[in-house]
Amino acid sequence: MNQIKVFAPATVANVSCGYDAMGFALETLGDEMIFTKTDTKAVVISKIEGADLPFETDKNVAGVVAKLMLKESNANFGLNIQIFKNFKPGSGLGSSAASASGTAFAVNQLLGNMYSNLELTKFAMQGEIAACGSAIADNVAAAIYGGFILVRSYEPLDIVSIPTPTNLVATILHPQIEIKTEDARKVVPKQIAINTAVAQWANVGGLISGLHSNDFDLIGRSLVDLVAEPNRKQLIPLFDDVKNATLTAGALGAGISGSGPSIFALSKNLETAKKVEAAMNTQYKNSGVAYSTYVSHISKTGTRIL
Amino acid sequence: MNQIKVFAPATVANVSCGYDAMGFALETLGDEMIFTKTDTKAVVISKIEGADLPFETDKNVAGVVAKLMLKESNANFGLNIQIFKNFKPGSGLGSSAASASGTAFAVNQLLGNMYSNLELTKFAMQGEIAACGSAIADNVAAAIYGGFILVRSYEPLDIVSIPTPTNLVATILHPQIEIKTEDARKVVPKQIAINTAVAQWANVGGLISGLHSNDFDLIGRSLVDLVAEPNRKQLIPLFDDVKNATLTAGALGAGISGSGPSIFALSKNLETAKKVEAAMNTQYKNSGVAYSTYVSHISKTGTRIL
Repeated sequence: MNQIKVFAPATVANVSCGYDAMGFALETLGDEMIFTKTDTKAVVISKIEGADLPFETDKNVAGVVAKLMLKESNANFGLNIQIFKNFKPGSGLGSSAASASGTAFAVNQLLGNMYSNLELTKFAMQGEIAACGSAIADNVAAAIYGGFILVRSYEPLDIVSIPTPTNLVATILHPQIEIKTEDARKVVPKQIAINTAVAQWANVGGLISGLHSNDFDLIGRSLVDLVAEPNRKQLIPLFDDVKNATLTAGALGAGISGSGPSIFALSKNLETAKKVEAAMNTQYKNSGVAYSTYVSHISKTGTRIL
Repeated sequence: MNQIKVFAPATVANVSCGYDAMGFALETLGDEMIFTKTDTKAVVISKIEGADLPFETDKNVAGVVAKLMLKESNANFGLNIQIFKNFKPGSGLGSSAASASGTAFAVNQLLGNMYSNLELTKFAMQGEIAACGSAIADNVAAAIYGGFILVRSYEPLDIVSIPTPTNLVATILHPQIEIKTEDARKVVPKQIAINTAVAQWANVGGLISGLHSNDFDLIGRSLVDLVAEPNRKQLIPLFDDVKNATLTAGALGAGISGSGPSIFALSKNLETAKKVEAAMNTQYKNSGVAYSTYVSHISKTGTRIL
């Protein structure tokens, strides 16, 4: 195989109660990337469409991950990379994670599948360091494993795949404002009350159990975030209005995607998810804020060959 | 039906990571209680064996729950209650919860099963108030529902039954020292670091997922308590030695049962659970502390008719 084209999904991290521990991958929203083997042993990024990202391979997440993997595997080839971004960096939908996991997945294919998903996640996490300074696993693990994932532990890294109910559909609102990840992290308290923590982990337990048992009501009841959302929502215009409108439209639950500004909602079928999208549009169309909306099933495969 | 004899199981609350949110019921350790209808409309406790508990119905958990249920249901009969305690109050194994849930279950049978498990849990929680001052649900819900339970929410009360792997076996060490619940609660910090909280709910997610998928290794890796155990373990003689010995003997994990002093371990089969019991005995036999050990499957039915 000399060339591979992959789809690298957008991902929703945190999933309300699962702050810094859970994520899921989208089926239809994501980047496309083309990787072509070269004889030079160098990594070159020859094309980036859809976003203003650096071509220098030490500054671009895809470049960082590709170089690391070629070095670690002692590969006898180089790479030409083309990146087609279909959703914007800074959306809270794991843009850098898509580049990192798409690269990890594709390079592994070109290497003959020598690495496990856990190893690919570790490579992709090095890309997250390049993008945001920390080796966050939730987005990249969701992108690589697909479906819902739980980062049970960082030391050692332990990723748990959680079953995804087939009918579950996500609706996304991306208000095109900038929230820096570090600002979003700054507003989350360093200490939380034990009662708040107990309520949060009870909801994590409920969400995981609901996903395992296809219990949509339980999933909905568990999509409660007492930790990040109460502090971050003021960074997102009309957050409460949008969330309430999605619930009225039939969503199981809604919350902030990653560190925002995107808002996600989960619904029990495509029809409801489209009603939820309409409700988001109604809230935002006169807001003066540019925005996009998306409806997508949960991706069961994650990053995949096109 | 004029008389009913029930088995009210001992229960393990918290289950390491699931502090104040999870519990499970034991199959073979528990109290026996006999309830006989009377014509007087009064509740009388005529026998208590195995523990020094009050016969006054306003002070005895069974009396409190029975009177409340007879009043709420407008019953046209009274009750004579006999209580045979097979494990000691103050063990951290839900002694008051066994009395409360045994009573709630039995009175419901005598009333013709008019109440749901959720309603029975609420009645039994009133017994917990009488016993310890707070309406804690984890032990009583485990005793009533059986198996593993998650208290997802208190307002409104939401109890989630979690599937229990058939082969899972608990081993219990009960050091016969007194730890007051309020002392055990006092040493748990009121505030915890967000990173600690995240690690704890990641383990709750792992434990729930492991129980759903019969993944014993995942169950074991998730039995980590960063919140209560590090502070409570000094109240329990030889805790670290016992825990380490159970792990060496093959236990999946171990921790403090409820607020202690009992220590529980979970194993993937009966043979291992007995090795774990032997390891506990080795640690405690020369400790100078009186103690008991128990090996039991997880009860899938909870409180039941004998």
